[in-house]
Amino acid sequence: MSTSSDVDLDEVYSFALDLAKQAGKMLDDAWRARCDGGPQTGHVEKESAVDLVTQTDEDVEAFIKQEIASKFPIHKFIGEETYSKGSSKEYLIGKEPTWCIDPLDGTVNYIHIFPMFCVSIGFILDGEPAIGVIHAPFLNQTFSACRGKGAWLNGTQRLPLIRNPIPPMPQDAPKGCVFSCEWGKDRRDQPDGNLHRKVESFFNMAAEIGGRQGKGGMVHGVRSLGSATLDLAYCAMGAFDIWWEGGCWEWDVAAGICLLKEAGGLVTTANPPTDPSTARIEDTKLGGRLYLAIRPAGDTEQETGRQGQERTVREVWRRVRHLDYPRPGA
Amino acid sequence: MSTSSDVDLDEVYSFALDLAKQAGKMLDDAWRARCDGGPQTGHVEKESAVDLVTQTDEDVEAFIKQEIASKFPIHKFIGEETYSKGSSKEYLIGKEPTWCIDPLDGTVNYIHIFPMFCVSIGFILDGEPAIGVIHAPFLNQTFSACRGKGAWLNGTQRLPLIRNPIPPMPQDAPKGCVFSCEWGKDRRDQPDGNLHRKVESFFNMAAEIGGRQGKGGMVHGVRSLGSATLDLAYCAMGAFDIWWEGGCWEWDVAAGICLLKEAGGLVTTANPPTDPSTARIEDTKLGGRLYLAIRPAGDTEQETGRQGQERTVREVWRRVRHLDYPRPGA
Repeated sequence: MSTSSDVDLDEVYSFALDLAKQAGKMLDDAWRARCDGGPQTGHVEKESAVDLVTQTDEDVEAFIKQEIASKFPIHKFIGEETYSKGSSKEYLIGKEPTWCIDPLDGTVNYIHIFPMFCVSIGFILDGEPAIGVIHAPFLNQTFSACRGKGAWLNGTQRLPLIRNPIPPMPQDAPKGCVFSCEWGKDRRDQPDGNLHRKVESFFNMAAEIGGRQGKGGMVHGVRSLGSATLDLAYCAMGAFDIWWEGGCWEWDVAAGICLLKEAGGLVTTANPPTDPSTARIEDTKLGGRLYLAIRPAGDTEQETGRQGQERTVREVWRRVRHLDYPRPGA
Repeated sequence: MSTSSDVDLDEVYSFALDLAKQAGKMLDDAWRARCDGGPQTGHVEKESAVDLVTQTDEDVEAFIKQEIASKFPIHKFIGEETYSKGSSKEYLIGKEPTWCIDPLDGTVNYIHIFPMFCVSIGFILDGEPAIGVIHAPFLNQTFSACRGKGAWLNGTQRLPLIRNPIPPMPQDAPKGCVFSCEWGKDRRDQPDGNLHRKVESFFNMAAEIGGRQGKGGMVHGVRSLGSATLDLAYCAMGAFDIWWEGGCWEWDVAAGICLLKEAGGLVTTANPPTDPSTARIEDTKLGGRLYLAIRPAGDTEQETGRQGQERTVREVWRRVRHLDYPRPGA
């Protein structure tokens, strides 16, 4: 087994950046060919009518896997499409250097050619995301981060964008925050099922202060992009203050978590603990499928940025419901 | 009073395109200055904590107004910020050539530097939008249309993007559709108020077929961008199949409606009529504050594109609630 001491992170980072751009060009070429009357992207349903895979997903993943195998033959590889075809959905990331890839995040957007789709390339060292590259070719936006080197937009603008100084969390967060959330793929209309719990949570976050039996959060705005990866990228940028979601897999978030942490953000679990006001706020587990992300935040005279983030986490937890997304084998 | 026969549409179109780019550069310069530690955009609340205006809004509108007054002194001008300061909210667009402008649509996005903000420049002739230019400087996307000349992205890609052939509406729409909607500014937690009715409508559109007492629409995805103008632009592009919203004003939609119609889309009212399955589907009134937009659609052997759009309108009407956004003086 290869170990972290064998890894030259600079070399891997530079390779990952190049790889993301090549993969992004494949996505770009494929949708442009469709515009010009070329073959329309066929897609097949995976687990439901809104869980889709296209031939492009599979082609891009095969390309990425092949490039990595040529350059770093001893590294482990986990990609959305190859993984989904396996029989189990166990968490397979251990201590060894591992690539964790989503060749196309935002598949529904891609099929409809809504620009919010991207390639997501994460590299995991000792179980933690150490490199993340997210490339959105239609938007011409590349988000990237490497452990200890900060997070960047297009290699030139350090994230978060506003950083001299970085704004603290609003005093009365979630009021004043942009709240990002996704309707997701579980659309079953079951009393107290995930969809009901999500809608109740979104509603609480949006409603006026004092509304919803005291749970109204009066957020500045509610946004849904259809890409967990880009939700995390925009949190790292500082554009989204809060992202709350359940049901993602590690390839959806590996690169984004690296990006957010390098920018100074926080990621913990979406599900409120028994006592949201005092529970210890632990870093999310990469394969936990439940995520609550808070943007980078500056200090004030009253509290540190981290304290402001934790205060925001507790205020979100007070307003959201538990979600039920099991981790098979966990 | 100047009349439509005095107007050279080509000249106005070319001027509007140039004006949108100059105004976009002002927005761009202002957010970039904030990144570099320059003055943060102050903002003041208009009608609620989520209804905001920045100094940049006002500066950009003043610039646009001045440019138009210099070039076309006899044209009428209606802009979001100048209008909002007036005492009434009456509908002021008549027969005369009129500019209808939103200097910054997506103000909350702009404050947080989420890229979905834009300048929206509409030009109205005989009461109908005849030119629309929407420029999103962070995204580097310019959407434009002029009566009879089609709708375009960045002047080079005709809209909708997929057009050889233009895809028909899905057979079982809204299933298979990307549904765009906004949480908006009315966050009052009142039983059967706008917020409750919106949430119920969104929930219906998202839920599985057969769910929600038969109202489940199982849309492909639910998206919320925080910009009515860009919602319309992405409908014209074909990326969003359906946009449903209440509460906008004419400057939010004037340019977008021109764009969508030139692309081949349909815009009618958001509020379902007494008999959604047979009511005549009328074009929206520009100042109606209630909008249901359907993307351009191709023909099949069974139905024309227009028939597919109308079928989709009826299926949406079956699933959504009436919204209450009055038009003072109407």
